[in-house]
Amino acid sequence: MHRTVLTKADGRKLYLYWQSSPPGEPGPDRIRGRAQAGHLRWHPLLAEWVIYAPERQGRTYHPPARACPFCPGGEVPFADFEVAVFENRFPALAARPERPPTLFVATAPAAGRAEVVVYTPAHRGSLATLSPDRRRLLARVWQDRYRELLALPEVRYVFPFENRGEAVGVTLTHPHGQIYAYPYVPPLPAREAAAFREAAVLQRLWRDLEAYRVAARPGLLAFVPPFARYPYEVWVAPEEPHPGPWTFTDAELDAFADLLGEVVARLDALFDRPMPYVMAFHAAPKGVDRFHFHVEFQPRLRARDRLKYLAGTELGAGAFTVDVLPEEAAQALREVRR
Amino acid sequence: MHRTVLTKADGRKLYLYWQSSPPGEPGPDRIRGRAQAGHLRWHPLLAEWVIYAPERQGRTYHPPARACPFCPGGEVPFADFEVAVFENRFPALAARPERPPTLFVATAPAAGRAEVVVYTPAHRGSLATLSPDRRRLLARVWQDRYRELLALPEVRYVFPFENRGEAVGVTLTHPHGQIYAYPYVPPLPAREAAAFREAAVLQRLWRDLEAYRVAARPGLLAFVPPFARYPYEVWVAPEEPHPGPWTFTDAELDAFADLLGEVVARLDALFDRPMPYVMAFHAAPKGVDRFHFHVEFQPRLRARDRLKYLAGTELGAGAFTVDVLPEEAAQALREVRR
Repeated sequence: MHRTVLTKADGRKLYLYWQSSPPGEPGPDRIRGRAQAGHLRWHPLLAEWVIYAPERQGRTYHPPARACPFCPGGEVPFADFEVAVFENRFPALAARPERPPTLFVATAPAAGRAEVVVYTPAHRGSLATLSPDRRRLLARVWQDRYRELLALPEVRYVFPFENRGEAVGVTLTHPHGQIYAYPYVPPLPAREAAAFREAAVLQRLWRDLEAYRVAARPGLLAFVPPFARYPYEVWVAPEEPHPGPWTFTDAELDAFADLLGEVVARLDALFDRPMPYVMAFHAAPKGVDRFHFHVEFQPRLRARDRLKYLAGTELGAGAFTVDVLPEEAAQALREVRR
Repeated sequence: MHRTVLTKADGRKLYLYWQSSPPGEPGPDRIRGRAQAGHLRWHPLLAEWVIYAPERQGRTYHPPARACPFCPGGEVPFADFEVAVFENRFPALAARPERPPTLFVATAPAAGRAEVVVYTPAHRGSLATLSPDRRRLLARVWQDRYRELLALPEVRYVFPFENRGEAVGVTLTHPHGQIYAYPYVPPLPAREAAAFREAAVLQRLWRDLEAYRVAARPGLLAFVPPFARYPYEVWVAPEEPHPGPWTFTDAELDAFADLLGEVVARLDALFDRPMPYVMAFHAAPKGVDRFHFHVEFQPRLRARDRLKYLAGTELGAGAFTVDVLPEEAAQALREVRR
């Protein structure tokens, strides 16, 4: 893998990654004008930080395809590229956030990074339709971003994710993911880290995996957790507990990339339409060793024509209800014809 | 307030509440056939229960208005009524749930109750358009349901809520709310109870309320919390810490009903369209005294034509991002013309 780092006209960093073709000469950098990141406030009843980013109200919203900012010549001012990463123009977290206000509750700067990962210069496609080589390059990009972002002194947690589909609010359809690097450990990975300190939860699961298995590659598994919170939820994890993809060998990175692609292909085949989902990488917080890295796919369809909505019980009480049994979800995903 | 309890043809309880007109003679009870409640599974990484209710997949979905099950002669087999409560035909929690399976993770019966609260026989309307008398009756209904459900030995938490609008997945538009009575304390009220044990968080807030105030009634306040997780989030709370509405006087119940109606009217006026929201009642868990009851409105519009979606950072990491500052939300809701 090769990488070059550039600085865009408005000061944002742009990283180009390639396996075979180095980028040519840059063209004009037309998309500029970064918004200011906001601040954090402490929620004293839930004991968690909330991120305020008022300038994100002005963010790009369903542009026409010809104005796609992620196609070549947009945010990436090159005629072609393989995988590109750049700082989000409307960041929730950034190197130079605003000064936080003084309030009744604790506040803090929204320090960190918010990056966009453009998987391909092609406007259409998905993790499932990328070429195997491109997917394997992407796995190395994630590994590189983890290493670089975890090294920043203000960062305590690095979180690559992908929102896919209008059902989860996606307004830019060009295949891409995002990375948030937080100055604190967010609630869900913090709770997972506490659990992994106590028990090797995923390794204990391998013993009884048969009914939950979806697919596999050497050293890696895709499965529906027996305690899934979403219909057709799928996790991808190495059999041995890695804290994050930064300890993967090249062979493991390849298997990881292949398996992610297969999972998305299976989710898409399930209802014969692109599955809207949130894909969330859960790696160890900085400095934590006992953690078992895994990727969680949270799909949004509970049937071909029916979305799963989170509502009162989930969002008001925190109690998830699931209509599809994990065993049945796993069987359907295992047997679906691709 | 008057109340009568009936048993529907399929064994479900039906409670009719009225202030002025007792119900007449019942007609045929056409809607019958209750689904089985499922079971709970323990999520070992997040340390919370997940509710599995596979029979809910068959629940009623966008029926035509003439087939509305909440209009008179549907679930409530009377020509007229004031407020009606009945056990959900597709319950997530019930008195006789299925026997839980034995799994790698802990399981338990989905014991408890899931009730529907029909606010009015009229097919259209909202908490804002109900007559003041009907809204005040409704407040007494919630009080009665709290008392009755908290007295059930298997119930540890009672949670009235309302999902409103297609944006939160509502498939039945007739004005109604729901009540879940859980056999455990769900994660969000559990975390709030821990916080209230440590500090009188809401009472401390009253000192600096000016910028956050939306509306008030004697002894009750409506405000945007300075640590809101949703755009235009509004809380309604008594100034003095009540554990739940079951300790409200009649005057407080009236003020509570009036203020809820005003908050919904203000949310609807904000963008001149019905605001989709989750309304969540947060009262004390059974046996807990140090709690400050409040109602949380979680609106779904961040602008007239833009929904707030929960996606990667919220659902994958648990870190909420908010585009609208609480101070600005409060000012907009305070000044909106109704």
